[in-house]
Amino acid sequence: MSLTVAASTELLSAGTVHELLLRVREKTPRVHTITNAVAQNFTANVLLALGAVPSMTIAEEEVAGFAGSADALLINLGTLDETRRAAIPLAIEAARAGGHPVSIDPVFVNRSPVRCAYATELLACGPDLVRLNAAEMEALFPGRAGVEELIAAGTVFAVTGEEDKIESRSGDFRLSNGHPLMARVTATGCAGGAVLAAFASVETDRALAAACGLSVFNIAGEIAAARACGPGTLVPELLDALYAMSLTDIEARLKAA
Amino acid sequence: MSLTVAASTELLSAGTVHELLLRVREKTPRVHTITNAVAQNFTANVLLALGAVPSMTIAEEEVAGFAGSADALLINLGTLDETRRAAIPLAIEAARAGGHPVSIDPVFVNRSPVRCAYATELLACGPDLVRLNAAEMEALFPGRAGVEELIAAGTVFAVTGEEDKIESRSGDFRLSNGHPLMARVTATGCAGGAVLAAFASVETDRALAAACGLSVFNIAGEIAAARACGPGTLVPELLDALYAMSLTDIEARLKAA
Amino acid sequence: MSLTVAASTELLSAGTVHELLLRVREKTPRVHTITNAVAQNFTANVLLALGAVPSMTIAEEEVAGFAGSADALLINLGTLDETRRAAIPLAIEAARAGGHPVSIDPVFVNRSPVRCAYATELLACGPDLVRLNAAEMEALFPGRAGVEELIAAGTVFAVTGEEDKIESRSGDFRLSNGHPLMARVTATGCAGGAVLAAFASVETDRALAAACGLSVFNIAGEIAAARACGPGTLVPELLDALYAMSLTDIEARLKAA
Repeated sequence: MSLTVAASTELLSAGTVHELLLRVREKTPRVHTITNAVAQNFTANVLLALGAVPSMTIAEEEVAGFAGSADALLINLGTLDETRRAAIPLAIEAARAGGHPVSIDPVFVNRSPVRCAYATELLACGPDLVRLNAAEMEALFPGRAGVEELIAAGTVFAVTGEEDKIESRSGDFRLSNGHPLMARVTATGCAGGAVLAAFASVETDRALAAACGLSVFNIAGEIAAARACGPGTLVPELLDALYAMSLTDIEARLKAA
Repeated sequence: MSLTVAASTELLSAGTVHELLLRVREKTPRVHTITNAVAQNFTANVLLALGAVPSMTIAEEEVAGFAGSADALLINLGTLDETRRAAIPLAIEAARAGGHPVSIDPVFVNRSPVRCAYATELLACGPDLVRLNAAEMEALFPGRAGVEELIAAGTVFAVTGEEDKIESRSGDFRLSNGHPLMARVTATGCAGGAVLAAFASVETDRALAAACGLSVFNIAGEIAAARACGPGTLVPELLDALYAMSLTDIEARLKAA
Repeated sequence: MSLTVAASTELLSAGTVHELLLRVREKTPRVHTITNAVAQNFTANVLLALGAVPSMTIAEEEVAGFAGSADALLINLGTLDETRRAAIPLAIEAARAGGHPVSIDPVFVNRSPVRCAYATELLACGPDLVRLNAAEMEALFPGRAGVEELIAAGTVFAVTGEEDKIESRSGDFRLSNGHPLMARVTATGCAGGAVLAAFASVETDRALAAACGLSVFNIAGEIAAARACGPGTLVPELLDALYAMSLTDIEARLKAA
């Protein structure tokens, strides 16, 4: 299996990552984000620091208008309540109708069968991008049952962990940036998902977009961890690093197999 | 038109701004704030750093009790959901009954016709203060239709932008403090609206209150931007600057036409 | 009365506080937290900095699953809406069934009779721990009517103020750590309650757990206040101090009668 994977693993250059970052800053994409209550503020600040423009309404009457006029949609399933359940299909339909990429982050599906069932239904719509960790992947696709079909149909999976892996029908990426201190701040994963959604709006090769977005976010985390004294100071430092990230930063740190 | 405006533009002195700031710190006004989920934490921290006391419940059963016993009410229309829709009229009625100033921040009405219609209804109640930007103003009052009637009836408009303008029947203010980095932090506008609401509770001339509150908040943003390395560190620095703001800070920075 | 109290006041050593802190870091307890929207992000970050793992869903379908599989449950009554009202009894039942400690933080019951009535009902379930201030205590138990019965039945009260007092049937603690600047940051009390809940999961003597948890949190606040320039920088500094807290920090600062 490692041979097969190695054969299809794509290279990623610092120049490409930087080019896509510049496109995001140039386009200032609107990213409509239905995310959990814990992650909303930090996610909005991550998008703004990156150069994107967040909107976060979950009201049934409004969500289609916001999602339809945005450049990308992110659905994060943390704190999944009835308001969000009502909003999500409307938002996806509006984003699809507008031709905008849809990303799904099935947070904690491994801890809630109800949520797992809901996420399985959502995935049937064939999102452009799914961000999750290995435990969430296993909960959704036991023994990987069903994954290949979705990949073959065009969905890109960004499986995060100590090593991050982007899986897609056009090839895989293996990425190793990031810092353990990031896991001591709530919603870093959720906020990172928003960066991927923003990148997906500037590059039709969603696997490449995901690889670049994840690298940018995790490199920001590394720069922040080098400057911070703990998880508290990590947050402002991460936002500053994202805001100021240069080609030199990416060249110095990018770890892509 | 510029001649007319110039004729009614009021002067604002650093001493007056500082005097009202001291009044807020002395009174520690309770500001009940119904605001969007993204802005809640930052807005509460801005109010506390200023010297005010926030409360933020949106529960239908409780909101009248909180709003009626507070010294000011702020309604912000970001993430307008059903719970908030139910709470808002109850809160306004209770604040009015208690004789406390009502401020409205019609966030993003230019991106949602449903929200714009809702805001138009709310404005008919004749709030003391409305904070919005030029795009939101145009969405609510196309070609300024209806603005003058509200102003004549006593509503003060704080129209924010590169230059901020306070419009009222007793005269206008033109203000130019602030820093571009503030726009790279989510909810700075919303939190600034809460400062205006707090100031409205210590000064019956609401236009003067709005001018002073906006100046204090934007000067804090300037001080923070001078100390920060990006939008991440701007947030704690802004709160610290607000907390420590002195007459000297205001004298050094106030830009009021 | 002071004689009676003095007789039952327990001593608390820095070594014990540190030992329980190490237990929390070792166990990384899951703390399911139903808290107000203003406090969610900060509370989650406090738990992560401490070494615990937060979850915060309030969805009726999921809350029992999360609360039942967590090591502790915290119910905070700020921003008490219908979703939370529906979730709370389900969460308590699941935590009880799993044998996990239940903590209640009846925020602002002194400002809302509806909330006070609701909290009174909740307390009848005999929670392991109640965190509140003197005004909230008086609202719930006018003239202390009913307190002794709950204490006799095993509930521990952590009454916070300039001096904090832990009351329990096995003895009381008097604690004096903390810093006034903490009150200028929203949700510090709420986040402190989550620390107590985490400590309750590693020590069956809930009064001791509460005394140690409160001391750790308030010492972190003191360390942060010594480093911060205001309430803005206090937040990241507090999280960093909590993350890095050593026996030396506790020995240098613990104030327990």
